[in-house]
Amino acid sequence: MTEEIKKTRQPLAQVVANNLEELIKSQKYNIGDKLPNEFELATELNVGRGTIREAIKLMAARNIVEIRRGTGTFVSETPGISEDPLGLSFIADKKKLSQDLMEMRSIIEPEIARLAAEHATVSEIEQMEALCLAIENLIQNDCNHEELDIELHTLIAKSSRNLVVPSLIPIIQTAISLFIDLTNRHLKDETIKTHAAIVSAIKQGDGTEAKKQMAAHLQYNKTALHIE
Amino acid sequence: MTEEIKKTRQPLAQVVANNLEELIKSQKYNIGDKLPNEFELATELNVGRGTIREAIKLMAARNIVEIRRGTGTFVSETPGISEDPLGLSFIADKKKLSQDLMEMRSIIEPEIARLAAEHATVSEIEQMEALCLAIENLIQNDCNHEELDIELHTLIAKSSRNLVVPSLIPIIQTAISLFIDLTNRHLKDETIKTHAAIVSAIKQGDGTEAKKQMAAHLQYNKTALHIE
Repeated sequence: MTEEIKKTRQPLAQVVANNLEELIKSQKYNIGDKLPNEFELATELNVGRGTIREAIKLMAARNIVEIRRGTGTFVSETPGISEDPLGLSFIADKKKLSQDLMEMRSIIEPEIARLAAEHATVSEIEQMEALCLAIENLIQNDCNHEELDIELHTLIAKSSRNLVVPSLIPIIQTAISLFIDLTNRHLKDETIKTHAAIVSAIKQGDGTEAKKQMAAHLQYNKTALHIE
Repeated sequence: MTEEIKKTRQPLAQVVANNLEELIKSQKYNIGDKLPNEFELATELNVGRGTIREAIKLMAARNIVEIRRGTGTFVSETPGISEDPLGLSFIADKKKLSQDLMEMRSIIEPEIARLAAEHATVSEIEQMEALCLAIENLIQNDCNHEELDIELHTLIAKSSRNLVVPSLIPIIQTAISLFIDLTNRHLKDETIKTHAAIVSAIKQGDGTEAKKQMAAHLQYNKTALHIE
């Protein structure tokens, strides 16, 4: 252990955190697994319990593990992806950020919709249809539909089955939140119509149409933001 | 402070870290700024120095701040974006990951090249040309060009001027590393030719051509990976 510290010049807790991280990556511990307790880890890694505690905290800060009080420490469901993995909340220019997020969504999301048309399961499609109806209902009752809107776009993204897509979902989520803030959600009819058209194309397994409808949906949004 | 703790049920150090994070977001401290020392922060936030120290460590784990030994603590250049922000190193299926990364690059990078043709500065274009030559030189001498390859694609991405793109660079970087590993870098001539064609289109400010050439470049890579 001493060699390692000298070489990397990292604090011991960080070295221990790196070692635990490697054990997770090599799948000694899988997603959702409970880690051994502090005492066991301290014995296994030959360091003090305080160091283990500090290492676990460093890993929790990066969402590699999740500390559940009174239960133990578990490998997180999305290890290494923090709440704001892209650091978007640190970008000060919210107007430019909103435009750039929308630009990036226009690049990524139509292709994601195409992949979703190829890979979505029957149960995912049923959920998408239910979300469309729920959003329509909220819009017609003049209620905030942000949360369900994000849920629908997230579900479409996940059903693309591309392993990298879950990491990109914060782009979609942040964009929707900023968009609804900035436009005062006045795109009601277009939202209902274009959401339904996207999901219908996905249901028919028509990737070209799903891509086209998602592009149209985002174009309405861009126009509302006066980007184009 | 006590109210806050009861409400959020977070450890004090995490609460303090959140408060410091908010100060950075609200631009009391900007990128590259040195934070006040432990003693000053402890006084300002009315907590002990040990808590400040622990809070700083939590923030450093997420790359919000950078601790430079003997110099102090600074707001990181890319706050909140860790070394592996997308958690890609935790994905066990490297073959599927490599294919999905290449799929995502094919979606994002041609559009990024188009934006680069519109926004790259003269000095960025000069750097791109120098990198192309250096890569050609390495390839012809049968040396590893991974590092410079990543540097070229990263530079093209940055010159798109989209604020979200720097967060997506790990996709490109991880994809290149995995690709060079898997294909044993035998795409030598194609790499030299297509890199030059991309940079030439960017130099001419021809977005459509830059997009087309980047797509062709990635198609060669996909074929080599036997994806399509």
